[in-house]
Amino acid sequence: MTNLTSTSTNRVASGVLTKYTFPSSSLGGLSTSVNVYVPDSAKSSPAPVLFYLAGLTCTEDTGAQKGGLFNSAGKEGIALVFPDTSPRGAGVEGEDADWQLGTGAGFYIDATEAKWKTHYNMYSFIVDELPSVLKAANLRLDFSRWSITGHSMGGHGALSIYLKNPALFKSASAFAPIANPAVVPWGIGAFTAYLGASAGTPPTAWLAHDASHLLANSTAPKGSLHLLVDVGTADQFLTAGQLTPEALERAAEARGAKGELELRRQEGYDHSYYFISTFSPDHVAFHAKYLKA
Amino acid sequence: MTNLTSTSTNRVASGVLTKYTFPSSSLGGLSTSVNVYVPDSAKSSPAPVLFYLAGLTCTEDTGAQKGGLFNSAGKEGIALVFPDTSPRGAGVEGEDADWQLGTGAGFYIDATEAKWKTHYNMYSFIVDELPSVLKAANLRLDFSRWSITGHSMGGHGALSIYLKNPALFKSASAFAPIANPAVVPWGIGAFTAYLGASAGTPPTAWLAHDASHLLANSTAPKGSLHLLVDVGTADQFLTAGQLTPEALERAAEARGAKGELELRRQEGYDHSYYFISTFSPDHVAFHAKYLKA
Repeated sequence: MTNLTSTSTNRVASGVLTKYTFPSSSLGGLSTSVNVYVPDSAKSSPAPVLFYLAGLTCTEDTGAQKGGLFNSAGKEGIALVFPDTSPRGAGVEGEDADWQLGTGAGFYIDATEAKWKTHYNMYSFIVDELPSVLKAANLRLDFSRWSITGHSMGGHGALSIYLKNPALFKSASAFAPIANPAVVPWGIGAFTAYLGASAGTPPTAWLAHDASHLLANSTAPKGSLHLLVDVGTADQFLTAGQLTPEALERAAEARGAKGELELRRQEGYDHSYYFISTFSPDHVAFHAKYLKA
Repeated sequence: MTNLTSTSTNRVASGVLTKYTFPSSSLGGLSTSVNVYVPDSAKSSPAPVLFYLAGLTCTEDTGAQKGGLFNSAGKEGIALVFPDTSPRGAGVEGEDADWQLGTGAGFYIDATEAKWKTHYNMYSFIVDELPSVLKAANLRLDFSRWSITGHSMGGHGALSIYLKNPALFKSASAFAPIANPAVVPWGIGAFTAYLGASAGTPPTAWLAHDASHLLANSTAPKGSLHLLVDVGTADQFLTAGQLTPEALERAAEARGAKGELELRRQEGYDHSYYFISTFSPDHVAFHAKYLKA
């Protein structure tokens, strides 16, 4: 049984991309859309799965249309899942007033503040509900081999979700992630709104979704984590102090397992999908190593 | 000397994509925008050039953002040029009323009808003005090695421009081209508006921009033409009779040089950029054979 409705299909890269909509319980019953790419190879053997979490202002279509992931995924026999970045149409006051909060800016966390908590639960949506829904639909996806990547806010999502659930995933990667959201403007703004300004500096509830904090304090066996991060040196949000990849490096050093993180500073690249599509084949190859090991 | 103004630059695929604007004389003095990708390899040796002509409703950004051409072009050391699909803001009555005519639908011909002929001269723009402007700007492009590709209306443009000027180009390719525009609804509509319904069935002025007619009647030495065409079998416009790739096949047969045309029917693919981005690396490799021979 499935509650998925297919709204479009496109053949791409020796596979099929289907857009599905379904009513999401974690998003307060709102309809959500997701793009799912299943390579033809899944017909003979269920495909390992790579989630792509998009950034602020993006949708389930952005990574699919501009990310340049399909040809590599098709060759490797990896399925791709592109969720939306927030609930849509929750009706929360102010949700459309600021591109850094609300619609298009779910930040892959479960809100605890009264105003947001009915609908803004993208963490549970990504980790629990979406995999369950996709499994129930029998799409030939093998969630025992599951990895996660993302861009900017979605890079924060990919890294923090992985580091909170290292046993669920084989590997994680990110393009220009918000690596230490608890202490940068984007994260402070979103976490204050969704999680409130609870005790601690930064608040403990914030650190529970902070990739750098999670990596430094991870109890996963040393050497068991697999992380690839690319950041462009001409990224305007790097310059603005929103990304702070050095915090992730320090965390890897603090953990004493530096080889778990490959952080690449890509000379001259910026925050755009031109940057992502240049390096996305590398990321697919990175995940393939662990998904197909 | 150059009259180009750079409005954005992005590093991509070991090169730089720059968007330029300039006042175009062939487009009646209107400002036009073009995306130009120059691979780093051009620093040591000027790069061969591949033009990408986009389809109806598209702009200079569509192929750049969704076409998936950069990584292959960067590896081959080929520059890419993405022009717009029509003049913008000509103020011709009705130019924004129909997506198949006027704005976004220049059809890569020079209009002869009074209403359009001041601005709608995309043929001269692509063949003469744009190369001249780019040469004058010293961007390290080698126009003695020049090829052309495109999608749908832009596939018609690429094939017809090549077949009218085989000595200018090394090779041409197309994704889902309007292969025989003089006899299909899209072409009849545009040619009637821009060229008028002059004598002949179809009018001679139309056949002068019809790829199938041009191929069948080409005086180029047999075996000297290099054409690659991909069409998806699930393309809605193939089904609707707008593309008619069989006309191009018949023309190649009539010319008695069938090996000059590789026409591939791609099972299950449609008219979208998911189709293009799947096969664009093949097209870059095809052109590289002739650009780098």
